[in-house]
Amino acid sequence: MIIVGEKINGSIPAVAKAIAAKDGDFIRRLAEKQTKAGVAFIDVCASVPGEQEMEVLGWLIGLVQEVSDIPLSIDSPNAAHCVQAIPLCKKPGLINSVSGEGDKVQQVFPVIADTPWQCIALLCDDRGIPKTVEKRLGVFNELMKQAAAYKIAPNRLYIDPLVEMLCTADEGIALVTTTVQKVKEQYEDIHVIGAASNVSFNLPARKYVNQGFIILAMQAGMDSVILDPLNKDIQGLIHATEALLGQDDFCIAYIGAFRAGRFGT
Amino acid sequence: MIIVGEKINGSIPAVAKAIAAKDGDFIRRLAEKQTKAGVAFIDVCASVPGEQEMEVLGWLIGLVQEVSDIPLSIDSPNAAHCVQAIPLCKKPGLINSVSGEGDKVQQVFPVIADTPWQCIALLCDDRGIPKTVEKRLGVFNELMKQAAAYKIAPNRLYIDPLVEMLCTADEGIALVTTTVQKVKEQYEDIHVIGAASNVSFNLPARKYVNQGFIILAMQAGMDSVILDPLNKDIQGLIHATEALLGQDDFCIAYIGAFRAGRFGT
Repeated sequence: MIIVGEKINGSIPAVAKAIAAKDGDFIRRLAEKQTKAGVAFIDVCASVPGEQEMEVLGWLIGLVQEVSDIPLSIDSPNAAHCVQAIPLCKKPGLINSVSGEGDKVQQVFPVIADTPWQCIALLCDDRGIPKTVEKRLGVFNELMKQAAAYKIAPNRLYIDPLVEMLCTADEGIALVTTTVQKVKEQYEDIHVIGAASNVSFNLPARKYVNQGFIILAMQAGMDSVILDPLNKDIQGLIHATEALLGQDDFCIAYIGAFRAGRFGT
Repeated sequence: MIIVGEKINGSIPAVAKAIAAKDGDFIRRLAEKQTKAGVAFIDVCASVPGEQEMEVLGWLIGLVQEVSDIPLSIDSPNAAHCVQAIPLCKKPGLINSVSGEGDKVQQVFPVIADTPWQCIALLCDDRGIPKTVEKRLGVFNELMKQAAAYKIAPNRLYIDPLVEMLCTADEGIALVTTTVQKVKEQYEDIHVIGAASNVSFNLPARKYVNQGFIILAMQAGMDSVILDPLNKDIQGLIHATEALLGQDDFCIAYIGAFRAGRFGT
């Protein structure tokens, strides 16, 4: 699994406080801990008003790069800001994100076209989040047409099928798992990413719903996830599920991650 | 999910001690706790030498029935002893188990044929545990022929596909999940049961492997499991997975189980 560490995000109160207080040590420590936890990308999200966002993003990116060589995931609802942050990064990373909304794709795809940068693409558009598999795949096909036009290979894209809250869902997460399967059927080496925590919104003991979601989505073909990599239960379950799904011969990676202290006592 | 509570088993050291000391209170408390945890069956397994087994089984069955109305799962490697225990039970329960080995089926099926008793059937025979899906289904088909001969309906059978340890497996648990899917394709209302803990044998942090196995096996069609119902993490994950798989509209059962204290803080 490709894990994107989510801990440097201004929507988390302790991080918002560190941003407001210019507490660089706090941010650096989060970067170090996530690096040690084996993430593939460190997400940086300012979550501040638009006019301050570039300054804060730049500050966060600089701090992370002082202590870590892990590529960054540049996380902003503003695609133009994602693009502006690219030159601040020492190595190619992940744009988080585009979708079918507005001109996001046109802002991002031309800039990353001839680079090794990768990109998360959400399956929604200006009409919102489609309510059926077919319509969600319609947004997907439109995104893939644009990617092909800019010669961005499928293996540089991370498709987020957008999981909604389970408590109001009709058929569990069938819409999401079916969408994932159909995306992977069309492009074998495309990535599928999920943010697990939406699914448990408004439910008690949310961790069980999040954990179950990740395992079932992995079974459907999800190969990447945005989460807290310091959560040992999630790390243990992800590594176990990879082995159970036959992606880790003789459990070598599972045992290695255990020995590295990523889960277990 | 149909949960069979596994705690009254002489292979567990504290239970063996209670059996040796004739500590009826200890056994009654285990029955009460499992009843409160919402199990469908309470398993009773003596795990003592054959000549003492019927006496211990009878004692355990009596104790459980003093404090619980939950049907029993009569658990013995000796099919004749399973059958002898039937008259000791106040209500019909579950025979644990038959398989293609020896004359187990011939010992059990005629006795339960015209009763409401149910039966676990393991997919192994005198040649051991088959190494391929096709051969495991061969044992299954032979068992189903026998069941049909005695007019035992598929919905009275709990098929155990037999999960082996992951650390030496070639393709994860694909053999088991494929077997489960094919069993359910043939008989929609047959039950599929699993004992989760074998899968994690010889691995560290076994709980993650067991948890992942249960969730993936539920996705494949397993609807019943033998486990410790007092384990709140497992209860939480099972209830969450039922909702994620679309088996619990609006998470009503999930929220109910949380409120009943089966998981969560």
